[in-house]
Amino acid sequence: MVSADQAFAGRSVLITGGLGFIGSNLARRLADAGAQVTLLDSLLPQFGGNLFNLAGYEERVRVNIGDLRDEYSINHLVQGQDFIFNLAGQVSHLDSMHNPDADLEINCRSQLYLLEACRKHNPAARILYTSTRQVYGRPKFLPVTESHPLEPADINGIHKQAGEWYHVLYHRIYGLHTTSLRLTNTYGPRMRVVDARQTFLGLWLRQILNHEPLTIYGDGQQKRDFNYVDDVVEALLRVAVTPATEGQIYNLGATDPVSLLDLARQLLSFAGTGSYQLVPFPAERKPIDIGDYFADFTKIRTAIGWQPAVSLVEGLPRALDYYRVHHKHYW
Amino acid sequence: MVSADQAFAGRSVLITGGLGFIGSNLARRLADAGAQVTLLDSLLPQFGGNLFNLAGYEERVRVNIGDLRDEYSINHLVQGQDFIFNLAGQVSHLDSMHNPDADLEINCRSQLYLLEACRKHNPAARILYTSTRQVYGRPKFLPVTESHPLEPADINGIHKQAGEWYHVLYHRIYGLHTTSLRLTNTYGPRMRVVDARQTFLGLWLRQILNHEPLTIYGDGQQKRDFNYVDDVVEALLRVAVTPATEGQIYNLGATDPVSLLDLARQLLSFAGTGSYQLVPFPAERKPIDIGDYFADFTKIRTAIGWQPAVSLVEGLPRALDYYRVHHKHYW
Repeated sequence: MVSADQAFAGRSVLITGGLGFIGSNLARRLADAGAQVTLLDSLLPQFGGNLFNLAGYEERVRVNIGDLRDEYSINHLVQGQDFIFNLAGQVSHLDSMHNPDADLEINCRSQLYLLEACRKHNPAARILYTSTRQVYGRPKFLPVTESHPLEPADINGIHKQAGEWYHVLYHRIYGLHTTSLRLTNTYGPRMRVVDARQTFLGLWLRQILNHEPLTIYGDGQQKRDFNYVDDVVEALLRVAVTPATEGQIYNLGATDPVSLLDLARQLLSFAGTGSYQLVPFPAERKPIDIGDYFADFTKIRTAIGWQPAVSLVEGLPRALDYYRVHHKHYW
Repeated sequence: MVSADQAFAGRSVLITGGLGFIGSNLARRLADAGAQVTLLDSLLPQFGGNLFNLAGYEERVRVNIGDLRDEYSINHLVQGQDFIFNLAGQVSHLDSMHNPDADLEINCRSQLYLLEACRKHNPAARILYTSTRQVYGRPKFLPVTESHPLEPADINGIHKQAGEWYHVLYHRIYGLHTTSLRLTNTYGPRMRVVDARQTFLGLWLRQILNHEPLTIYGDGQQKRDFNYVDDVVEALLRVAVTPATEGQIYNLGATDPVSLLDLARQLLSFAGTGSYQLVPFPAERKPIDIGDYFADFTKIRTAIGWQPAVSLVEGLPRALDYYRVHHKHYW
């Protein structure tokens, strides 16, 4: 089996949200594989984009600062791309409730612009979209399969599902080469840690390194699954080079779901210091919390043989080490 | 049991899309019941709004011409309303594919404006939203229940599902008093018949009265279910006065699904004249056609005892008679 990396040598790749957490890790891997990488990122302050995420790779990728809500630029940017990793999005659940209109613009309208641009100017491109477990809402059964009912728990989940459906529809109607991955919690180097917009785990890393107690909402018994970012990048690359996955939707997930309390304890033990505190759910977070969640990822394992390679025991210390060294670039 | 009509005497009611097909039939019934009715309608030319739909009721309802995409007017219009029947929308499947951005504006952004206006200015209002069977896509089983997987067949279906989810979410998070009905084909007096934007059945009525052959796409074997508009109005009113339906989603449907060919033959026999022709599916319609569809409406029957009262044998001649008399106001 040819490794995914070899398939990208000399190929043109566009990554939307490319200065963000997953986008920048993907960009670095693709640059190493010899791809011609263009990043599109808006660098909106509440989002995940950070120029430091490219440290050491500044000369090896092309950075195009721009907003996907700009209908016209994207018509140019998609041209000539062999692969488009469409990762740009508003990801904060709370922000989507406070400003549903902005979430609509970014997670729906922009996605239509991008797909229309591909339909008109580059229908041959391979397109990967990153969706979210938030589309399922509060799980009715565990682990959650792709056929679990869709009942988004917040505005962000509603709009991300629309974005995913656009991608699937443009495959079915226009033959665009799209696939969607429904991500669960992703963590690792280059995530946003200044606040909990990307995940609470990012915030915890900052709290540990700032010698503050970790804040856990509720009793900490909620179970969740976590993917180290390298595993998510691996899934994106391998799906991208597997035509049989076109038009499909796949969960990512992990084999070792943990309670938030256990996760906090593991993190503190790797850090060798610190404490946690249980605090009541903030009033505005409680109604959009989804409780226990972990995914069944049998479908993608069957399709491309993917499964996570990096356990929490390996991944958490790596993430801690990254921010220990580079924290001044992140908060 | 108090009839639904009595519950509306003296109450204030806003109907968005109130000059359209279902909206105007609802408005007339509510005016007869003694409600204070305000209609909001944009009268966009490709939509269903028609001032003649109010003929005889011009002095009995208040008409407010305006576009739901106007963020500010709606803040005023929702105030003081006991009931809001939120029927406004872009309904053409083909138009949504040609202009997805306009469909997004009308079926998503406007819905957020309306719900935000209610949350801020009138959280006590009872709100009914009309969704569509299009959210299910091509049925995987028949009849289609509310738990059938959601796989919208076109952009319109994606956006209508987002609009429905907004309503359910604003109930769950903010306690707004919302219910959604998923409508199937609705027909009867005051529907748009100048083209097939609302339903092909409207177009057929015009073709018969114009002495043109009815055009049936494909082999005419697709089975569908049809509701006479009075039955849909009855469902809206009865759900509106049943608090136990808040936060819920209900299919409407009929007990007598028919093939399009049989429907055409029935219509021609009631008309006493005319012919039909089978024509190949237009290239742009074929991929968004959903094949056989008919709904299971057990859930709403159980909740409020609703079932259709008007069969095709009764309803088709009534619809024909209406347009025979009033055609000059419709094409």
